[in-house]
Amino acid sequence: MSVTLGMILEARERLKGVAQRTGLVQFKALSDERMQVYLKTEDLQNTGSFKVRGAYIKIASLSKEEKACGVIASSAGNHAQGVALAARAFGVPATIVMPATAPISKVMATRELGAQVVLHGSVYDDAYAEAMRLQEETGATFIHPFDDPMVIAGQGTIGLEIMDDLPDVSAIVVPIGGGGLISGVAAAVKMLHPHVRVIGVQASGAAGMKASLEAGEVVSLPTAKTIADGIAVKRPGELTFALCREYVDEVVTVDDDEIAQAILFLMERGKMVAEGAGAAPVAAILNGKIGAEGKVAAVISGGNIDVTMISRIIEKGLLRAGRVSKLRIIMQDRPGQLELVSSIIGGNGANVMAIHHDRTDVNLDIRDAILEITMETQDRAHAQRIIAALREAGFDVT
Amino acid sequence: MSVTLGMILEARERLKGVAQRTGLVQFKALSDERMQVYLKTEDLQNTGSFKVRGAYIKIASLSKEEKACGVIASSAGNHAQGVALAARAFGVPATIVMPATAPISKVMATRELGAQVVLHGSVYDDAYAEAMRLQEETGATFIHPFDDPMVIAGQGTIGLEIMDDLPDVSAIVVPIGGGGLISGVAAAVKMLHPHVRVIGVQASGAAGMKASLEAGEVVSLPTAKTIADGIAVKRPGELTFALCREYVDEVVTVDDDEIAQAILFLMERGKMVAEGAGAAPVAAILNGKIGAEGKVAAVISGGNIDVTMISRIIEKGLLRAGRVSKLRIIMQDRPGQLELVSSIIGGNGANVMAIHHDRTDVNLDIRDAILEITMETQDRAHAQRIIAALREAGFDVT
Repeated sequence: MSVTLGMILEARERLKGVAQRTGLVQFKALSDERMQVYLKTEDLQNTGSFKVRGAYIKIASLSKEEKACGVIASSAGNHAQGVALAARAFGVPATIVMPATAPISKVMATRELGAQVVLHGSVYDDAYAEAMRLQEETGATFIHPFDDPMVIAGQGTIGLEIMDDLPDVSAIVVPIGGGGLISGVAAAVKMLHPHVRVIGVQASGAAGMKASLEAGEVVSLPTAKTIADGIAVKRPGELTFALCREYVDEVVTVDDDEIAQAILFLMERGKMVAEGAGAAPVAAILNGKIGAEGKVAAVISGGNIDVTMISRIIEKGLLRAGRVSKLRIIMQDRPGQLELVSSIIGGNGANVMAIHHDRTDVNLDIRDAILEITMETQDRAHAQRIIAALREAGFDVT
Repeated sequence: MSVTLGMILEARERLKGVAQRTGLVQFKALSDERMQVYLKTEDLQNTGSFKVRGAYIKIASLSKEEKACGVIASSAGNHAQGVALAARAFGVPATIVMPATAPISKVMATRELGAQVVLHGSVYDDAYAEAMRLQEETGATFIHPFDDPMVIAGQGTIGLEIMDDLPDVSAIVVPIGGGGLISGVAAAVKMLHPHVRVIGVQASGAAGMKASLEAGEVVSLPTAKTIADGIAVKRPGELTFALCREYVDEVVTVDDDEIAQAILFLMERGKMVAEGAGAAPVAAILNGKIGAEGKVAAVISGGNIDVTMISRIIEKGLLRAGRVSKLRIIMQDRPGQLELVSSIIGGNGANVMAIHHDRTDVNLDIRDAILEITMETQDRAHAQRIIAALREAGFDVT
C-alpha cells in the first residue's frame, strides 16, 4: 500500500480540530531580493512537533476491535507525545516504551497526555524490542514513527497547507530522519504541483536517507550522531525510501555547528524556539546549501529542545562569534598584576564574566601564574584589540 | 490634546502594510477550565517589539516641513529601532542618541534601519539630555517614547486587534513602563467595551505608575531596577498617568525571579522568545496575580532579549527547580575518593556537568580536599537522594 493524494486530502479533513493548522510566516532576517524564506511553524503544533498528525491518522484508520486493543509505540521523543495525544483523542489506551535514560520532562509530558509509560533498557533499540514483545503479548497495534502509509499521509497535510498559504512557492525544505515527514510533504506537493522543488536536509552524522538514495537501496548507518535528536535515525524506512526516490529532488547535509548556529539565529532573529531537527532547514539556507530562488518554505518540524541544550548552544555560539572570549594569560605572580590586567580589559570596554587563577601548573616558571579570563566582547576584532593591548603591556596572552 | 477613539481607528488604517497585524494565539500550557490565556505576539512585530506602531503614527502626523527637519529620539532599546524603521518608511532622516554602554547589537540594528546613531554618556539620562540639545540645534522633532497622544494612539491599535480576534475577552493584561502601551490599549478597549478589564503589570523594582496612581499624582522613583529593561522607567508620563487613572482597572507587580520564570516558561512551553517586559504579564498570571476568569489576553510586548541573559535565566531557573544541583563535598585527599563519588552520582542517574577540586582552602584539615560538583538532576527530590547516598558513604556534603 502506498500513499495517494486522496489519503492526504482525507487526512486534512480528519485533522481539523485535532491538529493546529500552523502558520507560515515570512522570516525577514533570512530573506533578500533573491530568496524570500517562509517558516512553517510546527514548533507551535500541539505537543510541540508535527508528529501528532501522522499518529492521529494512523489510529483513525484502525478498526473498532483494533482500537479496543490499544496502541503501542517506542520513542524517546516527539513520537511518544504525538501518539499519546492522538490516542487520547480517540479514547484508545496507549503504551509508550521509552529507554530509562529518557529525559524526565519527556516522560512526564507523555504521562500527562494519558499514556502508560514503560521505561526499559538504556537505548532506543532496547525500548523498541520491548515494545515489540509487549505488542505480541497484548495484541495492541504498533504505531511506527515513520514507515507507515497512514502516518506518512498525516504528515503530508503539511505540504497541502504550505501550498494553500503560498501558491507561488518555488521550493520546500524539509528535515529528514526516517523520512516520514518529507515523504508525505513531497508526495502531496509533487502530485499537485510537480514543478515545486522538494529538498531534504539531513544531519551529516546521520545521513542514512542520503546514503540510501546514493546506493539505490536502503542502507543502515553504523551510528547516528547529531545534536538534532529528532532526526538521529540509523536506517530509513522502505516505504519512505521509495517515496523519497520518486518525489524528492535533492538531499543536502548540515553539521552540528551549522545546526547550533541556526537554533541561535532563529532565537535571536525569529524569536522562535526550534529543536535541532526543526532548525536543520534554516541551517542549510544560512550556509548557502539551498540553490533555489523566489519563495522558499522551510519546515520547522518541532520545538522540543531541552533548555540546558539551549544554554550550551548560546555559550558555544557566542564564543564562535567573538561575543565571548576566553584568554589565557601568563603573568608574574606578584601584587598589582591582576589589577593591571583588569584595567586594560575594562578600559577597552569589555566585561569580565569569570576569572580563574592558578599558580600550580607544572609547566610554569616558579614565579609565574596562569590567569584564565572569560569576558564579553563586541566581536572578534574587539577581542583582538584587547589581546594586543595586553601584549603591549608585556603579558603573554593566548 | 488627549487620545480619541477616532485617532486609534485612524492609526489602524495607517499602519496597514507597515506594522504586522500580529497573531493572538492560545497558550494552552497556561490555560485551564477557569482561565484561557491568549498571547498577543508583538515579539513577532517588525523590529521585535510594538514600538514601531506609535513611532510611525507620530511621524505620520508631522507636517511636510517638520518631516524635512528629521526626527530625533533617545533610547537604548526598542524605541530606537521603532523610530528608525518608521522614519525610513517616510524617508525622514532619524537621529537616535544612545548611551555609549548600549549593547553593540542594538546599535548595529538601529544603524541597519538607516538611522544615524549618536553615542553619548553612560546612562539613559545623558543620552536624553544630548538628544534635547541636538533637537534645539537642528530643529528636528523629538519623538517621545510614551508621553505623546499620537504615540499612544499607535500603540492603541493593539487593543483594537485583540477585540477583533477575541470579542468575548474578559481581561487584557499589559506591561507598564512609561505607560504608552497600556494607555493606548486601555483607551481603545474601554471606549468600545467598558466591561473588559484592563490590568497593568509593573516590575516591583520600577513600579512608578502604580506609585503614581496610589499617590494621585505623577511621582518619580529614585531608581528603576529590573531585569525587564523595556519597562525600567523612573517616572511615568503626565498624559499616560491621566489615561491610566481613567481606564486601567488595576496594576499588579512582579519581581525579577517571577519575570525570569515566565521567560523560561514561554520558551519551554510556548516555544517563544520574550524579553523581560514582554514576559511580565505571563509572570503575573503564573503567580496567581490576575483575578480574572474566561478568556484573558496577555500582551507579549517584545522579544528583544540578549542571548547571554537567556543563558543566565536558564541556569538560574534550572538551579531553582532542582534540575541542576551544586554539591560541596569535603573528602580525604587520597586516591579512589573521586572515583567513589563519581560512581555514587552516576549510579543514581545524575549527570556530572563540572567538577572543581581544591585542597588549598585555609579552613580545611591538611588531609582533606574540597570537591565542588555541578550535576544535572531530575528534580529536588532526586538531588536529595544523591546527597543522602553520599552521606551514607561517609562524605561531608553541603
